[in-house]
Amino acid sequence: MQKQPLTVVKIGGNIIDNPSHLQSFLQLFAQVPGAKILVHGGGKLATRVAEAMGIQQQMVNGRRITNEATLQVVTMVYAGFINKSLVAVLQGQGCQALGLCGADAQTIVSKKRPAVTTPEGTIDYGFVGNVESINSTAIQRWLQQGITPVFSAITATAEGQLLNTNADTVAQSLATALSEHYQTSLVYGFEKPGVLMNVADDTSVIPQINPTLYQQLLLPPAGQTTGSVIFEGMIPKLQNAFEALHRGVQKVIIGHALHLPQLLLGTQGTTLQL
Amino acid sequence: MQKQPLTVVKIGGNIIDNPSHLQSFLQLFAQVPGAKILVHGGGKLATRVAEAMGIQQQMVNGRRITNEATLQVVTMVYAGFINKSLVAVLQGQGCQALGLCGADAQTIVSKKRPAVTTPEGTIDYGFVGNVESINSTAIQRWLQQGITPVFSAITATAEGQLLNTNADTVAQSLATALSEHYQTSLVYGFEKPGVLMNVADDTSVIPQINPTLYQQLLLPPAGQTTGSVIFEGMIPKLQNAFEALHRGVQKVIIGHALHLPQLLLGTQGTTLQL
Repeated sequence: MQKQPLTVVKIGGNIIDNPSHLQSFLQLFAQVPGAKILVHGGGKLATRVAEAMGIQQQMVNGRRITNEATLQVVTMVYAGFINKSLVAVLQGQGCQALGLCGADAQTIVSKKRPAVTTPEGTIDYGFVGNVESINSTAIQRWLQQGITPVFSAITATAEGQLLNTNADTVAQSLATALSEHYQTSLVYGFEKPGVLMNVADDTSVIPQINPTLYQQLLLPPAGQTTGSVIFEGMIPKLQNAFEALHRGVQKVIIGHALHLPQLLLGTQGTTLQL
Repeated sequence: MQKQPLTVVKIGGNIIDNPSHLQSFLQLFAQVPGAKILVHGGGKLATRVAEAMGIQQQMVNGRRITNEATLQVVTMVYAGFINKSLVAVLQGQGCQALGLCGADAQTIVSKKRPAVTTPEGTIDYGFVGNVESINSTAIQRWLQQGITPVFSAITATAEGQLLNTNADTVAQSLATALSEHYQTSLVYGFEKPGVLMNVADDTSVIPQINPTLYQQLLLPPAGQTTGSVIFEGMIPKLQNAFEALHRGVQKVIIGHALHLPQLLLGTQGTTLQL
């Protein structure tokens, strides 16, 4: 039996922080036909609230630590204000959105990230989660009922501890788990038109990346012995994307969130396929 | 066909503000057999966050006005931190909780409360909602799947405007709408052991109130021409309760949230029935 298509779209903080872009994106998202899921990141509001409440940002070796007070703020802002604002706007656009965090119906069960030992010492990231499992039965049921899940990247352990989780990973985990039942496309929407050959040139979008090209992009640029052809900040996203493809996702598309229809048609952005 | 039982429990801010009481309550709630729904109010965190963010409480003629900044805070705190914390703890107790605000799957559609004209002038309460309709189909489906909806009292208009809504009214509206399909009990859990004959005496719980007794309780006390036998603050809750009974709810129980099993058995608290 032919699997139904499913579109999983992840948007980051920069689009959330721009009200007119966000409004335009949500209009485009509401019009995506068929089963779909939205995953959203944070934005600057969490920092503003944390600063107002006098919560110190704890940094260890340049990495942010999620202490209990920070967890409270990100849960308020991500799973509360941002999530419900997106849901309400989507409802106004005729999209039957259901706002969720991973704790809801145990949709995403996570484990606290173990402390890591580095040459500079042990780093405990605090209340940060690694995704363990997805309740795809519940999600599938909702999709079949015409409901569009909207996920914030807050998850919980099976024991009920909320954890701050990476939104890219949440999107990838959902897409991967649901690819068993759906022909799944995973879209990473951000502020760039795609994966760029030259990070300073927005017209240098690479339209297609397959595993062979991916390996070449990881190599040092011509005449150098370190670094990579591709902008370093893009490497975790690409790794994430190829992991999703190897685990059953049909295609991953990276591009500007406001090009959503064109990304899905393949006329803009970067499409990654095996 | 015999209707299945459904228990709708509303808890207020005082239990939310007491971590050990909240933990005990959630353990009791998780053990309530059969279909159930939890509705929660606010608590002091919203005030703390609003003060920290420098948001002025707007009061008009002694009534609190929900301006845009306040709406943002209550959405963060009620639909975010409190809602997801309750959900995560319930999951840890083996209760398949799903945290919702009214915008989610348009479960509760509201309208902005119209401005009221008083002798002192017109009062616009701001972003405050009156419940218009309940999507009982979606809620029923979840209940049948063993899911326990956990509602914050944030709702939205059909056009997608979030609104701050009274949690007692949300609980009553849900109980009423679902009484068409379920034999519904509505529990108002608060910090008192029930409706008291003498508000200063916790042992003066009135075990049963029917419409005849209710009318008597509204009368001025013996030897007075104004006021009521019953504590005035209790009157809106009783009005709400009798409205629910007249609209199909089987019984309403008012009592201490930590007496939940006894309230459901009828051995503690005040039971209201027609």
